[in-house]
Amino acid sequence: MTQGPFENIQLCSTISATGRLELSLKESRLDEPGDDEIVVAIEAAPVNPSDIGLMIGYGDITSLRAEGTEAAPVAVMDVAPQLLPLVAARLDVALPTGNEGAGLVVRAGVNAEHLLGKRVAAFAGGMYARYRILPAKDCLVLPDGASSAEGAAAFVNPLTALGMVETMRREGHKALVHTAAASNLGQMLNRLCLADGIALVNIVRSKAQFEMLCAAGAKHVLNSASPDFEDELKKAISETEATLAFDAIGGGRLAGTILGAMEAAQAERGGKYSLYGSPVRKQVYIYGALDVGPIEVQRKFGMAWGMGGWLLPSFLDEIGNEAAERLRNRVRAELRTTFASQFHSVISLKDALGTDAIRNFAERATGRKTLIDPRRD
Amino acid sequence: MTQGPFENIQLCSTISATGRLELSLKESRLDEPGDDEIVVAIEAAPVNPSDIGLMIGYGDITSLRAEGTEAAPVAVMDVAPQLLPLVAARLDVALPTGNEGAGLVVRAGVNAEHLLGKRVAAFAGGMYARYRILPAKDCLVLPDGASSAEGAAAFVNPLTALGMVETMRREGHKALVHTAAASNLGQMLNRLCLADGIALVNIVRSKAQFEMLCAAGAKHVLNSASPDFEDELKKAISETEATLAFDAIGGGRLAGTILGAMEAAQAERGGKYSLYGSPVRKQVYIYGALDVGPIEVQRKFGMAWGMGGWLLPSFLDEIGNEAAERLRNRVRAELRTTFASQFHSVISLKDALGTDAIRNFAERATGRKTLIDPRRD
Repeated sequence: MTQGPFENIQLCSTISATGRLELSLKESRLDEPGDDEIVVAIEAAPVNPSDIGLMIGYGDITSLRAEGTEAAPVAVMDVAPQLLPLVAARLDVALPTGNEGAGLVVRAGVNAEHLLGKRVAAFAGGMYARYRILPAKDCLVLPDGASSAEGAAAFVNPLTALGMVETMRREGHKALVHTAAASNLGQMLNRLCLADGIALVNIVRSKAQFEMLCAAGAKHVLNSASPDFEDELKKAISETEATLAFDAIGGGRLAGTILGAMEAAQAERGGKYSLYGSPVRKQVYIYGALDVGPIEVQRKFGMAWGMGGWLLPSFLDEIGNEAAERLRNRVRAELRTTFASQFHSVISLKDALGTDAIRNFAERATGRKTLIDPRRD
Repeated sequence: MTQGPFENIQLCSTISATGRLELSLKESRLDEPGDDEIVVAIEAAPVNPSDIGLMIGYGDITSLRAEGTEAAPVAVMDVAPQLLPLVAARLDVALPTGNEGAGLVVRAGVNAEHLLGKRVAAFAGGMYARYRILPAKDCLVLPDGASSAEGAAAFVNPLTALGMVETMRREGHKALVHTAAASNLGQMLNRLCLADGIALVNIVRSKAQFEMLCAAGAKHVLNSASPDFEDELKKAISETEATLAFDAIGGGRLAGTILGAMEAAQAERGGKYSLYGSPVRKQVYIYGALDVGPIEVQRKFGMAWGMGGWLLPSFLDEIGNEAAERLRNRVRAELRTTFASQFHSVISLKDALGTDAIRNFAERATGRKTLIDPRRD
């Protein structure tokens, strides 16, 4: 057992009542783990869109500036006064960041000693840190030989992809539409649907993304920038009979356009006229906010429609422990295949406070995903 | 038993493939009722928004013109070419109109003779007619002494109001928000919520409507034209803890504004900060289309939200026969109190083809509801 006490550093985000958003490294001395707890030395934690939201989501990126010293860097942004009511509950609180990550178990309580020396992953928050104390039961033990980088993103994207398929089955749909489909998550969902024989309509935003997904074996890939996009969408939905979509974008017209295409595909199948459109339920879940502008919905889809938020932790609560455990076991079994993540760069906690790194986060660009490795600090 | 055969007339709506919408009276000879059927001589049928949708929903009201003769009037409107695909399934079909109504049972099959001479109401379509053959089991026998005018609107509005309250209970909400709350339906929902002790936030669009609902005993009435509307809405939602709304309007920003006010009310209650907002589910069901323009949703309400269509027949299917029967029994018991409707005018089938009448329908104005009485023809 590694000896303590441990000096810890944690990447925290604070918004002051005056609208100053500050990212900095907070030092602390780590507590002893409880009987059922372990201390994980974090070796890898991905920067997901949800992390970016917590770190800098309300800041004005054009106001970004470096403060502090080289040894203790601080990144600062302004938050517009009208946004402050939305974050009232976090004002002046230093929020630890980093939803998920993986590392080495370096210390363990008396009931968790079997985990010492193993690599584990967790979805527990506060993972952008040198160390993290966690309940042993919340950790996923990585397969033998897997690195922390391979296990770092074992929760958010894999469980989201599995959650989409599980939602589809539970709500009685037979195929899926996915937007922002070239993302790490989108590529994963594509592999999962190919493995499970589920028809998936992938919507991307560029020719390069289109080609990448086609090369990955995707059967239905549409570029929303194509002039024939709406016709292509209707055709793909007709072929797959998809009546459920997951949308990462939110703002703009895409979610409504998808519902309209689903209705048009149903109308083509014929049946008796109803003022209220097809009785088949059409649903779009919005799970992201790549566009935070207003959602614009032109209703061309009768009355059997729904739109709403979809959030992984709420979904996991809803399906219960046993079903969630089944999903986690599948992730563990296919961590290096179906659920593998790709990272564009690996940086230290201090690097993550640099203005270049933060601008990169803020762009949320496909194919530029970052991994934080606190051993580099 | 009245002797047949009966000469029938039915008010039908037809859209031709060339975009000509025609309202006319179709003559036919009535069949004999089957063993379990009755013939109802219609005495009263209301013109609800859903009827207006079927009659003239896709027509351009500015193109309305009278054709035909005094004995056989025809009203004609143009349908824009781009709307024709939406009505592909009804092209060149003369659709009988009139969702609900009431009348006298003038003939009955062998198993339904006990209904002869009684007044019944039904929600069966094709009620804008002199006669309607109906399965006896689908009819609601009116209480002794009730007129057809009193029973004419016993289904759509009463069951919709009861359905809103039932949906609230089934989905675990404790109070309601209702828009276009000064409508016949809105007044009914207000009486129902007062009777059942359910907190209801009524949103209206004018001072006159505000005063009318206040005079009817409503506790929370808001005028969306007020400059302080958003603050008042948040306050009313805070007080009532409403997390479910029924919206008759659809287009514009109101549905999204309601979700935002629900979130703000939750945020005020405190609790731990989450990037994803309050975990309490907030839902708006859109059951009408007073504004057919785009729905604009500015997301200021975290991830626990939903928006979607709500349709009475689908709701009744979903809850099953026994539950629906329980609702119908309550309507029958309170037909002259909670579920009473007010009508502004009573007209004949021929009158309903007049351009003035049709312009009045198209305005869907609060307080100008029409009843059709085919005995006047």
